[in-house]
Amino acid sequence: MSVLSNFDLIFFGATGDLALRKLLPALYFAYRDGKQPAGWRILGLARRDLTRDDYLSLLGDACRHHIPAADFDDKAWNAFCEHVDYLSVDGTDPAGFAALKDWFAQSGERVRVFYLSTAARLFGPICEGLAQHGLVTPQTRVVLEKPLGHDCASAEAINEAVGSIFAERQIFRIDHYLGKETVQNLLALRFGNSIFEPLWNRGSVRDVQITISEQVGVEERGEYYDPSGALRDMVQSHMLQLLCILAMEPPTNIDADAVRDEKLKVLRALRPITAANIKEKTVRGQYRAGAVAGKPVPGYLEEADIPPDSQTETYVAIKAEIDNWRWSGVPFFLRTGKRLPERMAEIVVNFRQVPHAILPPSTNSAEPNRLVIRLQPDEGVKLFLLVKVPGEGMRVKPVALDLDFAETFKHRQWEAYERLLREVIQGNLTLFMRRDELAAAWRWVDPILEGWRAMDEPPKPYTAGTWGPAAASALILRDGLAWREET
Amino acid sequence: MSVLSNFDLIFFGATGDLALRKLLPALYFAYRDGKQPAGWRILGLARRDLTRDDYLSLLGDACRHHIPAADFDDKAWNAFCEHVDYLSVDGTDPAGFAALKDWFAQSGERVRVFYLSTAARLFGPICEGLAQHGLVTPQTRVVLEKPLGHDCASAEAINEAVGSIFAERQIFRIDHYLGKETVQNLLALRFGNSIFEPLWNRGSVRDVQITISEQVGVEERGEYYDPSGALRDMVQSHMLQLLCILAMEPPTNIDADAVRDEKLKVLRALRPITAANIKEKTVRGQYRAGAVAGKPVPGYLEEADIPPDSQTETYVAIKAEIDNWRWSGVPFFLRTGKRLPERMAEIVVNFRQVPHAILPPSTNSAEPNRLVIRLQPDEGVKLFLLVKVPGEGMRVKPVALDLDFAETFKHRQWEAYERLLREVIQGNLTLFMRRDELAAAWRWVDPILEGWRAMDEPPKPYTAGTWGPAAASALILRDGLAWREET
Repeated sequence: MSVLSNFDLIFFGATGDLALRKLLPALYFAYRDGKQPAGWRILGLARRDLTRDDYLSLLGDACRHHIPAADFDDKAWNAFCEHVDYLSVDGTDPAGFAALKDWFAQSGERVRVFYLSTAARLFGPICEGLAQHGLVTPQTRVVLEKPLGHDCASAEAINEAVGSIFAERQIFRIDHYLGKETVQNLLALRFGNSIFEPLWNRGSVRDVQITISEQVGVEERGEYYDPSGALRDMVQSHMLQLLCILAMEPPTNIDADAVRDEKLKVLRALRPITAANIKEKTVRGQYRAGAVAGKPVPGYLEEADIPPDSQTETYVAIKAEIDNWRWSGVPFFLRTGKRLPERMAEIVVNFRQVPHAILPPSTNSAEPNRLVIRLQPDEGVKLFLLVKVPGEGMRVKPVALDLDFAETFKHRQWEAYERLLREVIQGNLTLFMRRDELAAAWRWVDPILEGWRAMDEPPKPYTAGTWGPAAASALILRDGLAWREET
Repeated sequence: MSVLSNFDLIFFGATGDLALRKLLPALYFAYRDGKQPAGWRILGLARRDLTRDDYLSLLGDACRHHIPAADFDDKAWNAFCEHVDYLSVDGTDPAGFAALKDWFAQSGERVRVFYLSTAARLFGPICEGLAQHGLVTPQTRVVLEKPLGHDCASAEAINEAVGSIFAERQIFRIDHYLGKETVQNLLALRFGNSIFEPLWNRGSVRDVQITISEQVGVEERGEYYDPSGALRDMVQSHMLQLLCILAMEPPTNIDADAVRDEKLKVLRALRPITAANIKEKTVRGQYRAGAVAGKPVPGYLEEADIPPDSQTETYVAIKAEIDNWRWSGVPFFLRTGKRLPERMAEIVVNFRQVPHAILPPSTNSAEPNRLVIRLQPDEGVKLFLLVKVPGEGMRVKPVALDLDFAETFKHRQWEAYERLLREVIQGNLTLFMRRDELAAAWRWVDPILEGWRAMDEPPKPYTAGTWGPAAASALILRDGLAWREET
């Protein structure tokens, strides 16, 4: 790794949940593991009128809470804190950026990363304010947190505003799923091994299923969540990213633009879902009161900050299709929801059944091969094969060839943000979304949103603690298939 | 399973090592596991003048020694013994078969299996004697132990003699490797899973390695072994059988002739090795004194019953090639030897490297995928993949997706003979060699034997406890490859 020895990381929204729970702890780990050079500076910015000591105390409390005790080392922590500063700066008021300019004047010219962990509507104004104060140089980078808009037009407006200040190569649009170990591993599996490519197409793959399920409900995020919903919150971002990495053609290399060009081709090959076919291709649901993990929970409409007549979907299932030579005829089923029976994210590649049964028929022999890539809670890869049951006769049974990462590599798993921050610092854009990618994702999602509006039907209710509306099973059953549920 | 309720199993050579150590214990297990109906009778035949009680006592001692104590149940044993009888009959003297006729007269017409666990030269005379005494009916089966001859002509002479009495469908030629769980599993893997067939060809497979290594030397078998050698003893039988099952085209079903037709096609497609190319395609070796498992051991020429100028090979390595569309250009490397560092049998399918390196180069990324099918000492399947090393950057590392049968299926592993005896009883010929198969195997082996004779060079010496002569590494290195040695 090329390590920059002089480096400033500036966090807008430094008192926010993401900064305190994920971003700063990730930097602490880099420091503790000896990967943070002496010349680094970290600056927290927020509206709240705190002194540096106040902020360090706030940060310390949060980190002690979020970092496992075994990993929290007081000495390393104190040393880390020496690199951290705080300024009270209001992102909505660029006049206040003068203080920021003074702060930078303490050191010479160096690489600066502005991490915008604020509402997306502030991205444009903040960037403009930075430019006005002469804080943007060719060496400056900006990191944008999702959600970047609520449809293609609003996302493009934000991108336009940020893009008028920063060149595309300076803009790091975060989707933290791309920082997950298993997503990286998907790249390694596909392109480090020769045995998958011959199978990775319509000839061998019957269907693909991508599931991100949550046990939690909307919790205290109602104000943010209700205008958004599952499609925008999960599908447009994380799930399409997973789909792209799974389905893309092999890039020439893993340089940022080579990979992003291939992902973009997938997004552009997605068959449109519109009012004409929306009932056949999508199911949206909304949870009702039920029980999760043995505890009764309220319905979505009873949650705080949710309008009693809300039609926001907390569950969505989609049959996506990719219109290209590789994937024609292979459905990609996406589903995500809140208040489902377990917290889980996985990609299932179901291979076709054998073309002709040679082995004697047995109850299990119809089980096809599948590759299961687990993203959470535990990360791992399983390949389900049929093997012979030992003993008499030829009976077969599915078993899993299993690779559990935590088990295989016995060291601390990196958090997604830890990896992504390192990539920003190294200036590597591969794991970040390019503007045209984001636009293409919205261009596929927008007609679905419009289709739902045109349909004027409420989301289908499902009981909290179940796997979503029955219509989602019907959706996949129309292809003669079923969601993978046992884990 | 269709169980025959009335059944006679007659063992020629009943006081021999194989009968006492493998065959009768296998039947005890069938009895103990409740799979042997009341109407079965087992008859031991040998020259030795023993009473039934003498034989049961001999058998009891042997079984108590060879069956794990946890599996030996006195009550089951005693009940089993009630089904066992003994007659002193000399296989070389058909006149004595009259006693056998009387024994059969005690019961009505039933299926009879004659298991010939004697020298192959007796197979013809025994069969003829049985026929002369009217003991061969269409319901009679005969089991022939290997070795069936020492070249194509002698094998055919035996087959001709047996074939003049028995129809091919009545003849069960044993190769106990075909009874191994893992060989069965190879069928299940190849034909129960859809993901292997697209990879199972020259496009994806770089080379195949089949190894059967022994730690033991020739031991007290010198008299038998020296006229034979590793090529006849291991390659002509076990190794070619493994190669056939690995390389054959998918049969229409797993019926005996469907499978054996496909195996035959492989044998016939083997590229001939003759005096012209024998130095390039084969290495033969003979062990010298050395140490195995930390103990000093003598050289082959110092073993009992070995002529001091013997040129018999105790090690052989062969580059076999299959001239058909599926395997053209894919070398199948076979090696087997005595006094090697470990006792092991495995099939390694090495897949090709990725066609183009997308991932950043790293020391390990050149490691290709491989499928390792272990036959002994432990049976199992491992698939070696490259995965990403967790943490920073994109470093990959080979790991094994692992399926250990003993671990996965926690019950007693069947012995090969147990399975094969059950197959004989069920009249299923799939796991037995057909006459034309055997002839085809010899037809490939004979020119190698001739080539060695023509070459008039002694086998290359290797030190006991090493992996054979250096020339065997050179053999495979000429293709830019190496034997898989770590396990």
